[in-house]
Amino acid sequence: MSDVLDSVTPFDVEFTTPLVLERGGLLPSYRLRCETYGSLNTERTNAVLVCHALSGDHHAAGRHHPSDPKPGWWDHYIGPGKAIDTDRFFVVSLNNLGGCSGSTGPTSLNPDTGLLYGPDFPEITVLDWVVSQARLADHLGIEQFAAVVGGSLGGMQALQWAISFPERLRAAVVIAAAPKLNAQNIAFNEVARQAILRDPNFRDGRYREFDVVPASGVGLARMVGHITYLSDVSMGQKFGRTAPRAEFESDGVNFAVESYLRYQGEQFSTRFDANTYLLMTHALDYFDPTAGDQVPLAEVLKDTQCRFLVLSFTTDWRFSPSRSEEIVDALVKAQRPVSYVRLESEHGHDAFLIPDATYQAVLGTFMARLADDLEVPS
Amino acid sequence: MSDVLDSVTPFDVEFTTPLVLERGGLLPSYRLRCETYGSLNTERTNAVLVCHALSGDHHAAGRHHPSDPKPGWWDHYIGPGKAIDTDRFFVVSLNNLGGCSGSTGPTSLNPDTGLLYGPDFPEITVLDWVVSQARLADHLGIEQFAAVVGGSLGGMQALQWAISFPERLRAAVVIAAAPKLNAQNIAFNEVARQAILRDPNFRDGRYREFDVVPASGVGLARMVGHITYLSDVSMGQKFGRTAPRAEFESDGVNFAVESYLRYQGEQFSTRFDANTYLLMTHALDYFDPTAGDQVPLAEVLKDTQCRFLVLSFTTDWRFSPSRSEEIVDALVKAQRPVSYVRLESEHGHDAFLIPDATYQAVLGTFMARLADDLEVPS
Repeated sequence: MSDVLDSVTPFDVEFTTPLVLERGGLLPSYRLRCETYGSLNTERTNAVLVCHALSGDHHAAGRHHPSDPKPGWWDHYIGPGKAIDTDRFFVVSLNNLGGCSGSTGPTSLNPDTGLLYGPDFPEITVLDWVVSQARLADHLGIEQFAAVVGGSLGGMQALQWAISFPERLRAAVVIAAAPKLNAQNIAFNEVARQAILRDPNFRDGRYREFDVVPASGVGLARMVGHITYLSDVSMGQKFGRTAPRAEFESDGVNFAVESYLRYQGEQFSTRFDANTYLLMTHALDYFDPTAGDQVPLAEVLKDTQCRFLVLSFTTDWRFSPSRSEEIVDALVKAQRPVSYVRLESEHGHDAFLIPDATYQAVLGTFMARLADDLEVPS
Repeated sequence: MSDVLDSVTPFDVEFTTPLVLERGGLLPSYRLRCETYGSLNTERTNAVLVCHALSGDHHAAGRHHPSDPKPGWWDHYIGPGKAIDTDRFFVVSLNNLGGCSGSTGPTSLNPDTGLLYGPDFPEITVLDWVVSQARLADHLGIEQFAAVVGGSLGGMQALQWAISFPERLRAAVVIAAAPKLNAQNIAFNEVARQAILRDPNFRDGRYREFDVVPASGVGLARMVGHITYLSDVSMGQKFGRTAPRAEFESDGVNFAVESYLRYQGEQFSTRFDANTYLLMTHALDYFDPTAGDQVPLAEVLKDTQCRFLVLSFTTDWRFSPSRSEEIVDALVKAQRPVSYVRLESEHGHDAFLIPDATYQAVLGTFMARLADDLEVPS
C-alpha cells in the first residue's frame, strides 16, 4: 500500500515517569513530538527509528499539508519506494529532548516551577536521547526496531542504540558520523557557543524573559557551522569568487559566499532556540562511548547484536571518512557484522542529506534486505 | 660579522608623497615602522624584504631589549647563521600600511582632519603594500632586493612583487600561500568580520571615540581564525579531548581546547585593532592577480624575472599544498625558474612559523645560493 505522505500529522507523547539524566539532571515529566510514516505490521517488527542531527526535528519526511513548499528534512530517502520504503517500513521520527520544535526543551515550562526552563534546562547527552527514544518505542508497542538510522549526530544515536539496547534493534545505520568529536570539532562548537554567549541579547540564557532573541549570535554560530557542513569543493562550485546577486548587494558584501552565509544565519536565527543550540553542541562534545578511552571502542561494541551499515562521504571534513573507519575497524575487531561504503561526493558533510543515486542504492539495498528478512517465516 | 640581534631598534620612515590606492582611496602622507637586521653591503645588493601575514608586524627577528621574553615572529629563520643569514643579508621588515603596530593605519590621525581614521581608513590591497614597500626600498637606497620573502598573506606580497616590480627582486619566496582565496577562505574571513561587526562595542568602527574596544568580537574572530591555522592532527596531539588545566576551569569549559581558544582570543583582542583586522581580511579576499580570471595566472607570471621558491605544508588546510601547486604549475607553464617543496608537517598553516629542520634546510640552501651568487664577481 502506497501512501503519498502529503498530509503527515505530528503528534505528542507525554511521559510522566521522571527521567534521570546522564549528567546528573532530572526531568520530572516530558513530551516528545513525533511523526510516523507507513504502517506498523501486525508482528510489530517493521519499525525504523530515524534520529535527527544538530538542528533537525521530527519532520523527517512528507508534508504536513499538500501545499507545503518543502517536505521533511530527509524526504529524499524516506517514502513509498524510496531507500527507507514506507510501503515496507513503519518509520518513527521525533524531535529530541531539549529541542525547540515541540518536544520538551529550554523553551518549555518547568512543571516544578511553572517558569520557562531557559538556561536551567538540564544537560542532555546522546544516551539520554536513546533512553527517551526507548521509552517512546515502549509507548508505541515496538519491542525491537528493524533499524535505527541517523546521519551526523543522528548516527551517534544509532551507535548508542546498538551499545545500550543491543536486543532492541536488528540494524544500525550510522551515516557521516564519528565515534567521538576530535579537538577541532569541539573547537568549532566552542566558537559557535561563544558567538551566542557573547551576544548581549543572550542575557545569561534568559532572553525570553526579556522578550529579546540573541539572533546575531545564533546567526553567527550558524555561519561557522555551515562552513563546516560544506566542502571547499562545493563552496567553490557554488560560489567561487563571484560577486553577490544584485538583491544581496550591500555595504561590505563583496562576494556571493558572504551574502549566502549571512542569509543562512539570519534564517536560522529566526527559527532556532539559542539554548537548544548550546545544548545540542554540548551533547555532540560529550558523546564518547569509550568514556575517555577507558574502554577500547571494539570492547564497547563487542556485545552489540545488530548488523551495521556505516557510510561516509569523501569530501566530508567535519566527520571525515577516517572517523567512520574508526567505527568500522572497531566493529571488525569486535567481529560484528558491518558493511561500509565510502561514498564519492562533493557536498562535504551535508552529503548525507542530499539526493545521490549511489547513496540511495546502497542504503536502499541494505534496507530492502532487512525488509526481506522480516518477511521470511521464522 | 655576527650580530646577536639582542637590541634591535624599530625606526619610522615618513612619506609625504600621496599614495593613490588600488581601490580608490588616497593617503596624503603615511609612516611605515621598520626594522632591519644585518648590514647592507656596499653594492646594496644583499637586501631581503620580509613581508608579514595577517596579524604580524615589523618585529620579525631579534629582541628590542636583551631581556625581552620573546623574540620577533620569525626569529627561528632570521639571524646570524640562520636560514635568512643576517651575516650575509640585510633584512628589512615593516609593519604594513593599515596595520596597528606603528605604521599609518586606522589607529592613526588623518592629517586632513586631525581626527582618528578609524573606519574611514581607506581600503588597502596587497598591491598597495607592495607599492609602499617599493617606496621604502627607494628610501633605503635599495634598487633591487636579493629576495622578497613571506608566508601566507606575506607570500602573496612576494608574488605581487614579482609581478609588479619584476626588475626589483632576484628571488621571490612564497610560503604557505595561495594565488587567491577560495570561497571557503573568504567564508571564514567573513565569519571573523561578522564577529567584530556584531560586537556592540564596535560602534561602526568608532569605538575609540567612545573609549571602548570590541574585544569580544575581535577575540571571537581570532578563535575562528586560530582553528584554521592549526591542523586537526596538531589540535588532536596538543589537546585531544582532555579537560582544561585547573587554572582554566570555569563554568561551561569542559575541554582544554576550549580554554586555549578563549585565552588566544583574549590575548589577541588586547593587542590588535579591530579596524585593522577587517582591513587585513579584506586585503586577503581581494588578492587576485588574475583579476577575476580575466588573465590566466601563467600569463600574469610570464614577465616575472626572478627565480621562485614555493613551499607548502602537508597538513595546511587553510592554504593547502594544492593551492601552492597552482602557483608552481603556472610558473612552469610560463617557463619561469621555480623550485617547489611540499614539506611534511603536522602543524597546519602555522607550520610556516614553526622551527623544522627540513624547512630550515630548504629555505637556507636557497638563500645561501642567492648569497653566493651575489658574491661572484660579475
